[in-house]
Amino acid sequence: MTEPPTFSLPPTFLGVSKTGRDAELCIAGIPLDIGTTNRSGARFGPEAIRRASRMLVDGAHPQRWIDPVASLELADIGNFDIALGDISASLALIEAQAAPLAHLAALGGEHTVTLALLRALAKKKGPLGLVHFDAHVDTWRDNFGQAYAHGSVFFHAIEEGLVDPRRMIQIGIRSPVQKEVFDWTLSKGVTIITAQDAHLRAPSDLAAAIRSVVGEGPTYLSFDIDVLDPAFAPGTGTPEVGGLATWQAQAILRGLETVDFVGMDVVEVAPAYDHAEITALAAATIVWEYLALIASSR
Amino acid sequence: MTEPPTFSLPPTFLGVSKTGRDAELCIAGIPLDIGTTNRSGARFGPEAIRRASRMLVDGAHPQRWIDPVASLELADIGNFDIALGDISASLALIEAQAAPLAHLAALGGEHTVTLALLRALAKKKGPLGLVHFDAHVDTWRDNFGQAYAHGSVFFHAIEEGLVDPRRMIQIGIRSPVQKEVFDWTLSKGVTIITAQDAHLRAPSDLAAAIRSVVGEGPTYLSFDIDVLDPAFAPGTGTPEVGGLATWQAQAILRGLETVDFVGMDVVEVAPAYDHAEITALAAATIVWEYLALIASSR
Amino acid sequence: MTEPPTFSLPPTFLGVSKTGRDAELCIAGIPLDIGTTNRSGARFGPEAIRRASRMLVDGAHPQRWIDPVASLELADIGNFDIALGDISASLALIEAQAAPLAHLAALGGEHTVTLALLRALAKKKGPLGLVHFDAHVDTWRDNFGQAYAHGSVFFHAIEEGLVDPRRMIQIGIRSPVQKEVFDWTLSKGVTIITAQDAHLRAPSDLAAAIRSVVGEGPTYLSFDIDVLDPAFAPGTGTPEVGGLATWQAQAILRGLETVDFVGMDVVEVAPAYDHAEITALAAATIVWEYLALIASSR
Amino acid sequence: MTEPPTFSLPPTFLGVSKTGRDAELCIAGIPLDIGTTNRSGARFGPEAIRRASRMLVDGAHPQRWIDPVASLELADIGNFDIALGDISASLALIEAQAAPLAHLAALGGEHTVTLALLRALAKKKGPLGLVHFDAHVDTWRDNFGQAYAHGSVFFHAIEEGLVDPRRMIQIGIRSPVQKEVFDWTLSKGVTIITAQDAHLRAPSDLAAAIRSVVGEGPTYLSFDIDVLDPAFAPGTGTPEVGGLATWQAQAILRGLETVDFVGMDVVEVAPAYDHAEITALAAATIVWEYLALIASSR
Amino acid sequence: MTEPPTFSLPPTFLGVSKTGRDAELCIAGIPLDIGTTNRSGARFGPEAIRRASRMLVDGAHPQRWIDPVASLELADIGNFDIALGDISASLALIEAQAAPLAHLAALGGEHTVTLALLRALAKKKGPLGLVHFDAHVDTWRDNFGQAYAHGSVFFHAIEEGLVDPRRMIQIGIRSPVQKEVFDWTLSKGVTIITAQDAHLRAPSDLAAAIRSVVGEGPTYLSFDIDVLDPAFAPGTGTPEVGGLATWQAQAILRGLETVDFVGMDVVEVAPAYDHAEITALAAATIVWEYLALIASSR
Amino acid sequence: MTEPPTFSLPPTFLGVSKTGRDAELCIAGIPLDIGTTNRSGARFGPEAIRRASRMLVDGAHPQRWIDPVASLELADIGNFDIALGDISASLALIEAQAAPLAHLAALGGEHTVTLALLRALAKKKGPLGLVHFDAHVDTWRDNFGQAYAHGSVFFHAIEEGLVDPRRMIQIGIRSPVQKEVFDWTLSKGVTIITAQDAHLRAPSDLAAAIRSVVGEGPTYLSFDIDVLDPAFAPGTGTPEVGGLATWQAQAILRGLETVDFVGMDVVEVAPAYDHAEITALAAATIVWEYLALIASSR
Repeated sequence: MTEPPTFSLPPTFLGVSKTGRDAELCIAGIPLDIGTTNRSGARFGPEAIRRASRMLVDGAHPQRWIDPVASLELADIGNFDIALGDISASLALIEAQAAPLAHLAALGGEHTVTLALLRALAKKKGPLGLVHFDAHVDTWRDNFGQAYAHGSVFFHAIEEGLVDPRRMIQIGIRSPVQKEVFDWTLSKGVTIITAQDAHLRAPSDLAAAIRSVVGEGPTYLSFDIDVLDPAFAPGTGTPEVGGLATWQAQAILRGLETVDFVGMDVVEVAPAYDHAEITALAAATIVWEYLALIASSR
Repeated sequence: MTEPPTFSLPPTFLGVSKTGRDAELCIAGIPLDIGTTNRSGARFGPEAIRRASRMLVDGAHPQRWIDPVASLELADIGNFDIALGDISASLALIEAQAAPLAHLAALGGEHTVTLALLRALAKKKGPLGLVHFDAHVDTWRDNFGQAYAHGSVFFHAIEEGLVDPRRMIQIGIRSPVQKEVFDWTLSKGVTIITAQDAHLRAPSDLAAAIRSVVGEGPTYLSFDIDVLDPAFAPGTGTPEVGGLATWQAQAILRGLETVDFVGMDVVEVAPAYDHAEITALAAATIVWEYLALIASSR
Repeated sequence: MTEPPTFSLPPTFLGVSKTGRDAELCIAGIPLDIGTTNRSGARFGPEAIRRASRMLVDGAHPQRWIDPVASLELADIGNFDIALGDISASLALIEAQAAPLAHLAALGGEHTVTLALLRALAKKKGPLGLVHFDAHVDTWRDNFGQAYAHGSVFFHAIEEGLVDPRRMIQIGIRSPVQKEVFDWTLSKGVTIITAQDAHLRAPSDLAAAIRSVVGEGPTYLSFDIDVLDPAFAPGTGTPEVGGLATWQAQAILRGLETVDFVGMDVVEVAPAYDHAEITALAAATIVWEYLALIASSR
Repeated sequence: MTEPPTFSLPPTFLGVSKTGRDAELCIAGIPLDIGTTNRSGARFGPEAIRRASRMLVDGAHPQRWIDPVASLELADIGNFDIALGDISASLALIEAQAAPLAHLAALGGEHTVTLALLRALAKKKGPLGLVHFDAHVDTWRDNFGQAYAHGSVFFHAIEEGLVDPRRMIQIGIRSPVQKEVFDWTLSKGVTIITAQDAHLRAPSDLAAAIRSVVGEGPTYLSFDIDVLDPAFAPGTGTPEVGGLATWQAQAILRGLETVDFVGMDVVEVAPAYDHAEITALAAATIVWEYLALIASSR
Repeated sequence: MTEPPTFSLPPTFLGVSKTGRDAELCIAGIPLDIGTTNRSGARFGPEAIRRASRMLVDGAHPQRWIDPVASLELADIGNFDIALGDISASLALIEAQAAPLAHLAALGGEHTVTLALLRALAKKKGPLGLVHFDAHVDTWRDNFGQAYAHGSVFFHAIEEGLVDPRRMIQIGIRSPVQKEVFDWTLSKGVTIITAQDAHLRAPSDLAAAIRSVVGEGPTYLSFDIDVLDPAFAPGTGTPEVGGLATWQAQAILRGLETVDFVGMDVVEVAPAYDHAEITALAAATIVWEYLALIASSR
Repeated sequence: MTEPPTFSLPPTFLGVSKTGRDAELCIAGIPLDIGTTNRSGARFGPEAIRRASRMLVDGAHPQRWIDPVASLELADIGNFDIALGDISASLALIEAQAAPLAHLAALGGEHTVTLALLRALAKKKGPLGLVHFDAHVDTWRDNFGQAYAHGSVFFHAIEEGLVDPRRMIQIGIRSPVQKEVFDWTLSKGVTIITAQDAHLRAPSDLAAAIRSVVGEGPTYLSFDIDVLDPAFAPGTGTPEVGGLATWQAQAILRGLETVDFVGMDVVEVAPAYDHAEITALAAATIVWEYLALIASSR
């Protein structure tokens, strides 16, 4: 082990000291949370995930035997600017800040931020494949009357052509949902694996299904922390019971080496509802799994 | 989604506005907790479950494609009167209030309330089948010297002929227990599936076992939240580790469409020990699963 | 004591059952929190204050010997509609809902809501006197670039002529503040009593100062819970140490019998940061003090 | 300092190792909490107070320069037996266990236990003087229909002649209360000092008032922890804002050297609502102040 | 059930009243936590585990049908002395206190204590077999520069010949780790089962693997609570997501009847990060499983 | 207000971006906590204080009308290196790192760190005056057998001649203490103002007493957060009830303009026991008051 001890590390993601936006892979926080329909507080997600990530600083991934910090040129570029209390203006700001980056792993903030990130990426790479972990389909047309908020992200992403719904798969879905919303999603070509399905299938089988859906094109990973059961991720805004265990999500991700990932986010960590940092640590570990995946695939 | 957002909904169960006791299916809170042998506080269970239920207001059950709120004539009739500090008087009050209702889903309170509810039902329908989720057999003769409290509910229910023990099944049992208490329970004909058994069997197999035991007669569902592992339900009075995950309980319940349920309760939610409402949300979701089951079976 | 016990009361404010908007005095929740510059979560303030208010249901005020519930025609009219994620639209909605009410005690939500409430009142009554308890002057021109949010409420209220700054007094001020903001406030005629001043003066003296400033015209009470020290009110978004004890705030309010209050709010209760409901109880008690004041003054 | 460090001390009160009931002064826990009208959980008060008391083990009282552990023959005799779920039977058990003790400092449990303790003492010493710290008068005739519970303790104590109301003084009163209950209390001769009064008077003046009321006869101290403001004692069942600071209670007690105390209790500590043990530590310190008072007066 | 109720039991382990160090099996707390590299606080582990153990006092193990309290001569001998702020001196003290005991189940404290316990045992019994549940291999050469702390326990145990690495198995490993540390461990002959492996294999299969590795010689069980997922054991210092469920650990332990266990510890319970005692209860239950195993094997 | 909002600021102290050790005034964290005799966890104090300090970033001190960030050349130089698990080695490291700095405001960590800081300063400036806020005298000769830990800091500081005891004053003392320890302290010339004394005197009078004791020579401020009552600072290791309110500490500090301060620390913030950051915010505010004092005195 290298000094200093975990508790004394600076609270950047994985303790990285680089901050330049021209890095190979950038970590950025996006502290937007005004589009949540239940509990707010995801604005403090980025800093909580950074702090928790310090448990993962030192050593290699115990399956891939690669240390993301050593293997990738990582920079923690801090938090994106947002417009206080204004969703649309914030989406524009986020897109503008994401656009120039080579590869971004974003720490939410709530799920609305993904729409801006997909807009930035799709301009460069065309419609993307999407691996979407979530308890909710997030393909509602609106959110209690608000067009742009965390429940309509993928409605807009599909309508705007940012993702290719036939290369889009949702894992862990389990919330109540209007049948017409669910059917619309299926009708666009999206593959949905409910949480109950996921519990009854082996992670390797689920990974194979994902690989099959997204194929070889550029693909985005959007990980809503509420895909995990509230036991594993209490610190989130719209929890639903019956979700995945963290080990399942890890095992699935470990089976996605062949996917061409071009960006990712982990969203909806609301630290005020977390306990002993377990949600933040789960989120940090998902990003770390992603980084190990990227590092291994080169 | 319909307005208002989740966080602004009134705290009735699933936001229902009907309050009449002549509804097809009534929700009632029973804030009794003086019969707990360890942590108290289940008196605040009903209001916590109601608040948490708001996450489930909007949309259909994502397997049955039925929305309980739209499909059933539901009323939240508030809390039952109880006698402060007096178990026996409270049991009489509860029975009297439950008796006239067509179909009751009760929000505990501690498990002692189930005895009163079974008394009310058995008078109308004779000895009942029983699906009993719990960490504890609850067939002790007494509770540290007290005849009527939460550990002796089913001893009395069997002795009073309220349930037919050959049509009674317990799932999730795992607490320390005197062998004579366990053997007495078995000797009456009760089927016991321990938590360790449950973890090693598929939920569909467990559902089949339940259906086989309870058969076609009128059956009651009593769901002690401590059947779940404390990771999933910390907010309870007598936790035992090694319990079920919430998804398992949901999967089992989803396999019980053919059972003729005539009433249910979810008990032992103690909010002072909960975190981020996860226990209350689990309890609310169990009731919601039950309502979807009832709605589907008509 | 009347039945049922406190823990079983329905969670309306002071347990009142009237809900009609034509009542003499209406209680409404306003679950807006997207204008907060630090911690969010005040959207759950109204329901937390209502629950906590149940400690105060039964009996008379132990100085005025009047029971607000018995003496006033009170209605809890539920929560105001707001526009999810849109401050300006929410302000318009709030104003429209407040306008027809005879007398409103509002449960926030964050401080931005006060601007809408003052707009509604000023249209009917002209520029108002203002008794403003707060740690912050809230007379910034903007909030990190956002014109309308919780730090600029009284800048706009003064600029729009909703309040008469010479009849406006702020008590408990103590946050860092730019000297030009402070001076602008004083230059408009506002009286400022800092928290340090307040600690060194008797509550009766402070009440006299307030009465002197607001005089005889119609006056509004805006009580930001962060005027209290975080020890007494941890559950808030922008805490500042060095604040008032709750007893001081009560003592000051008890000295304001002669003020002609025409409305009030208590804002910035963020339950996710509260502990054991102490912040919510403080907020509920402030409203109860206000109701006793109104009831006594008739 | 003597070994071992605080964190390793056994969790008896002040770490005392004596357990014999014939000690000069006995500490006993009374884990009854079924008579609470709001939050339950005081059953865990005794063990929480014992754990917290370890901060006070080592050294002398920094005003009296006496170490209670060294100066008194103290025994921690464990918890009294109670009857689960049965108030009346519990009161009889408590009285029987208290009766033989020379001098008892009792750790509640809720306030109902004081009635049993006064019954035991009054049989030996006749009607007692009473120093009663509380937010509530506790002289209601009943508790939501229940004769014996924590709100009617002193109604019964007065009616049964256990205390001499003219030698009884209540400090810190501030809850809503029916005027007839308040007036009944005054009419019996009880002196009431409200919390607002207490805040405006010097502790030495309050101590003089107490000494004047209780005079020279045998006197009991009943300290309901809710006399403290919830900021200082959040871990209690029926909190009321506006209460005393702990230093005030200590200062008052330090002025009572001339009072002939014959027993005491500290009640209503509900650890599930406490934070960082601050309520339990306040309770332990009150007992420690009492012990220093007793030790000094010999 | 025997009196008193759970909440009133004295806080010794399983409520045992024997304290003599010559008992057949001793329980001792070891409140050392200065060797933790992240969160501290395990010094309060022993008392938290004792309190939580009271849920397990009454009745038989529901698979083995043996009550450890009745079947074994158990003593809770309190906490070992340690040297405040001095790891090396503490290790010497711990070894000296452990040496004379016939059979010890130790309650940590952090994992460093195991080194001292192994030293004491190995002197009597030679190199031991080791069943090691943990998220971390704990075979680092040092801990951020410190030779003896909780990450280097088994490096020293192997180097000092206290354990036979060919009879040593680690279950649940999943933290980041330098490949050379992992390889060194394997090169010594240690068997490692990662958490991901464990999730994909049946507990009975894992138990068979353990039995096969440790064989028939004297064997030690060291159970670091962080082998459990943070959902099941949040109250620990160096959590890693993706861990075991408690039921899995129990199921594995239940398959180890044939192992000749000569001592055990459960370590790294940090109560300040626990919630509702779930971590402490898991730890207490693991000890209880061990005791049932020992009792059954005689 | 300047962008970004509080919740998005980087977690340096007061958001300062300078990190050079040659700044006019440096902020450093010292994450040592192994010398605590009760609760540990102060190792996380520095980062908690930094996060909380963001509430104070923007604006001037509302009495001195000076903004410390704008007026001083401030640098946050991160955390000092410490030796894991080794107090003596850590003291040497701390002293060496502090020595070259022009002026240091240190964020503890526990109180032991002050000894190293005084050693560094006294070498440069000779025996110092000392303003010491604390619940404990910290002049014990040892700490449960350990010479150097948080209870013996000022014994050593006096014995080593680092401070001039006749220019040393302790404010807020209230813990139990052996009379010989207290008397030794007085005999050296130290002035002690107990918490009870402090509550009965005006802050301006206390400030005058401090000024009178420390006179004109170089003076150090050591602020143990446990000088505050646990209501105001629950997040600490050795709490004592009866302490100061935060406003009192602020008022006293504001009266010390004429003191020649050459360094300061705030110690014993243990975030695991904090709630809603109130302790960390109190600590951050004390440092901010100090900075405003320094800035004003130039």
